[in-house]
Amino acid sequence: MSRGGIAHWMLEEVGQPYELKVVDYGAPMKSDDFLAVNPMGKVPAIVHGGKVVTEVAAICAYLADAFPEAGLAPDPKNRADYYRWLFFAAGPVEAAVSTRACGFEPSEENQRTLGFGTLEATLDTLAGAVRDRRYIAGDRFSAADVYVGSHIGWGMQFGTMDERPEFVAYWEGLKDRPARQVADRFMREAMEQAGRE
Amino acid sequence: MSRGGIAHWMLEEVGQPYELKVVDYGAPMKSDDFLAVNPMGKVPAIVHGGKVVTEVAAICAYLADAFPEAGLAPDPKNRADYYRWLFFAAGPVEAAVSTRACGFEPSEENQRTLGFGTLEATLDTLAGAVRDRRYIAGDRFSAADVYVGSHIGWGMQFGTMDERPEFVAYWEGLKDRPARQVADRFMREAMEQAGRE
Repeated sequence: MSRGGIAHWMLEEVGQPYELKVVDYGAPMKSDDFLAVNPMGKVPAIVHGGKVVTEVAAICAYLADAFPEAGLAPDPKNRADYYRWLFFAAGPVEAAVSTRACGFEPSEENQRTLGFGTLEATLDTLAGAVRDRRYIAGDRFSAADVYVGSHIGWGMQFGTMDERPEFVAYWEGLKDRPARQVADRFMREAMEQAGRE
Repeated sequence: MSRGGIAHWMLEEVGQPYELKVVDYGAPMKSDDFLAVNPMGKVPAIVHGGKVVTEVAAICAYLADAFPEAGLAPDPKNRADYYRWLFFAAGPVEAAVSTRACGFEPSEENQRTLGFGTLEATLDTLAGAVRDRRYIAGDRFSAADVYVGSHIGWGMQFGTMDERPEFVAYWEGLKDRPARQVADRFMREAMEQAGRE
């Protein structure tokens, strides 16, 4: 649900028409129809120009480049922070948070294998990346803020990330964007609907 | 060592001058000098135009965009497969392989949390992505082949990925590239050197 919400936020930032399909967990997500779109049986996935894109960070990066008029990616010559923090969130942050959520505590040798060391070191680095910065890549909002911001916003909401002052300040500058509010409202309504059924 | 080798291969594909610094595990990787470059205390990291890029997939994507004359990234309008498989390898593949290498076997609930399901499902999807394809994104070699190909090549060498026919055929088309051979030779010599010390 939260991963789908990130793609929805990004679609709203792009500002082009799209059709949303909600795929329920369980049988619908493992149906032949949906597996033809994403053989991992995971949401979100987008279809654009006959091509499928899966992995929510890839969806953000793809849409930013496919719709340059929305101004959601830095110039290709100036993408050091952009790619660094997109991949940092998609790799170490995602792995560190979800490994902890599973209750698995990596040994020192495991930490080297897993590539993120500890959750604390990973969050220290992430906090450094957003400290005193409104946006994570340059001085403009970008797809990297949709993705990294969602990790931070959801992480604090679900309690998988501490409410560090750096995270609170950064999220404060993102959470009221109209595009995010549309995606957030849709998700709340879908969850209420599911709760009534 | 293997992550550093991927960045080295990519630097060779770009074909511009660079200076290589080997940072040993242990104290040198956790020194103040190196932590100023990468607070995670991890290699590889590159410095270009005064900016640092960490995360090896980000280094590949960054260099491809920073040096467009090398032709290592598809046109920005045509990056569905490019981003999809870069992030798929950096996220689910990396996580599934290293989780298994740690001996942690996720429960069904954990599988949903970790986002990759099982190692087998992840490798099935990866095999489907390279089946009957010389390159993973379109009909030209790209930075995505450096990154995904390295996962597959190293995975088979270290025994963390099965030698599936799809993986063998795809890697066969990549492993003899001159740029990879330069990086490979450097690493072999560095390892022999370390072994003698």
